Amino acid sequence: MSIHAINRTQYHQYWDNSVKPAIFVKSGDTITFDCLDASGGVITPDVTAKDLASLSLAGFNKVSGPVHVDIALPGDTLQVDFLDIQTADWGWTAILPGFGLLADEFSEVGIKIWKLHKNTSGDESEGYGYTWFDEEKGIKIPLKPFNGEIGVAPADNGKHSTIPPYLTGGNIDLKHITKGATVYLPVKIEGALFSIGDGHAAQGDGEVCGTAIETPIKATVRLTVHKNKPYVQTPHYSITKVADESGEFYGTTGVGSDIREATRDATRSMIAYLRAEHGLTRTEAYMLCSVAGDLRMHEVVDMPNYLIGMMIPKSIFGHSSS
Amino acid sequence: MSIHAINRTQYHQYWDNSVKPAIFVKSGDTITFDCLDASGGVITPDVTAKDLASLSLAGFNKVSGPVHVDIALPGDTLQVDFLDIQTADWGWTAILPGFGLLADEFSEVGIKIWKLHKNTSGDESEGYGYTWFDEEKGIKIPLKPFNGEIGVAPADNGKHSTIPPYLTGGNIDLKHITKGATVYLPVKIEGALFSIGDGHAAQGDGEVCGTAIETPIKATVRLTVHKNKPYVQTPHYSITKVADESGEFYGTTGVGSDIREATRDATRSMIAYLRAEHGLTRTEAYMLCSVAGDLRMHEVVDMPNYLIGMMIPKSIFGHSSS
Repeated sequence: MSIHAINRTQYHQYWDNSVKPAIFVKSGDTITFDCLDASGGVITPDVTAKDLASLSLAGFNKVSGPVHVDIALPGDTLQVDFLDIQTADWGWTAILPGFGLLADEFSEVGIKIWKLHKNTSGDESEGYGYTWFDEEKGIKIPLKPFNGEIGVAPADNGKHSTIPPYLTGGNIDLKHITKGATVYLPVKIEGALFSIGDGHAAQGDGEVCGTAIETPIKATVRLTVHKNKPYVQTPHYSITKVADESGEFYGTTGVGSDIREATRDATRSMIAYLRAEHGLTRTEAYMLCSVAGDLRMHEVVDMPNYLIGMMIPKSIFGHSSS
Repeated sequence: MSIHAINRTQYHQYWDNSVKPAIFVKSGDTITFDCLDASGGVITPDVTAKDLASLSLAGFNKVSGPVHVDIALPGDTLQVDFLDIQTADWGWTAILPGFGLLADEFSEVGIKIWKLHKNTSGDESEGYGYTWFDEEKGIKIPLKPFNGEIGVAPADNGKHSTIPPYLTGGNIDLKHITKGATVYLPVKIEGALFSIGDGHAAQGDGEVCGTAIETPIKATVRLTVHKNKPYVQTPHYSITKVADESGEFYGTTGVGSDIREATRDATRSMIAYLRAEHGLTRTEAYMLCSVAGDLRMHEVVDMPNYLIGMMIPKSIFGHSSS
């Protein structure tokens, strides 16, 4: 088994099965990816909301790779083990025009720059580190870094935007794929053509404001091809530790026959709660929902109404809270 | 503060603000509810699939109450603290015609009777108990009992089915509302008119096959009226321990522009996994998804596609599993 590296210039802008492999590896090999952040380096720690208003998203979500895996054939499954994930020492969260679950209600651009305090104790049981959402209010987010983009080339020819997720992965934004987790992807092209990108230092299930704590990321993965997992037709995953395992949560719900609108209602209700009980502004609350609130589908069978919940860990507030 | 009791004959079939209160209590009082199971006692441990095929759901989901709380007025919030929850020593799970997330694909009736092994050690840190899904295969479900129905009377006059959840609660099937949890409900009627029912011994987020481990349940709750929580417009909740805190999960996903279909795909994919890797039948797998699989909305902003996940704790299989 060999160890390989993908550097910051080895990226592509679209999922496209005609992109030439950046490197060729064997099943079982390990690759370290040095990934740009989702903005491709355009957003820097001194960016302003004014800068963002005129920003084009066209260059966003470049992905690093692709990696050609020797024995991978269409119908196989690619196992991706995340052996290590390291963030930069800063990150950003933005509310971008026309993007996000409540885009029609948040027309103003918002930007937040985070300082990421990495755990340097050497004791992994203490976690990866933390970042202050609001030090004065004592609101602190534990860092649980992962790649939002994890995918293989699609069967369909042509350029496919890296913004949506696909059956072959892509921008799955799956917060639980932290160090120690495994993703399984359905291979559609000889060699699989695997790529990752879109580093996140922390995110809630849903990523409701449209961005997480975005950060450049270095990830080391092991790629293994399986010939006997035909049931993997969409991304599957195996995790050793649920990313939101802290015990106490406050939850809000949305109820109704339109799942998306119920999801929006659950988010609106959490924003209202955070404003009323934690003194956050509307924009702050929306961002906090995106980086720390988890959307769950509590009930999907009692027709005509669905019940969608957003749960936020009380531990981020530094104390229990009603 | 007083302690009150609601017995098994004090129920109603509809959410209806004209139902006469079963009892009158003061804010801060405690009430023990002795609730029928969701079938109202029709399903017994010796029921067969044949019996179920001709069953009418008309009498299902009776709720116990209603309780009139003295100072509750429209616009107030009713806090419901779950102080204790006890199940019977048996439960049932069914696949009923026309009911469930994959109703069109599961036309056959299915029934499973569970023996509930309650923890009698007196040590609550050991949990509530367990039940075997399949003892031979070593698949064991931890019991985490809760009431599926928790609600107050609606503002709109008339009879409202107890099957769907509403803004005022009802069949919210919220698995996290176990002992120690709190629900907040928006009061719409003088006295609130609070009721509960639909005992569940365990359930996954989503309750995908349409039923949980259904069981008669005794629940003790404290009701407290708040005048200063106007942001509670749908059920909110506060939980002290997330009901699926076990660390290791296997997850499947559904990806697409239709959220419901992506949810169905995530469920179908988990069924395929459980059949392939754990040797379950199709019906067994669907039921296991309902009682132990959690639906999460991993990503809801990367348009046009949503990514919905179903996560199942590996601990139920008695060992780690790929």
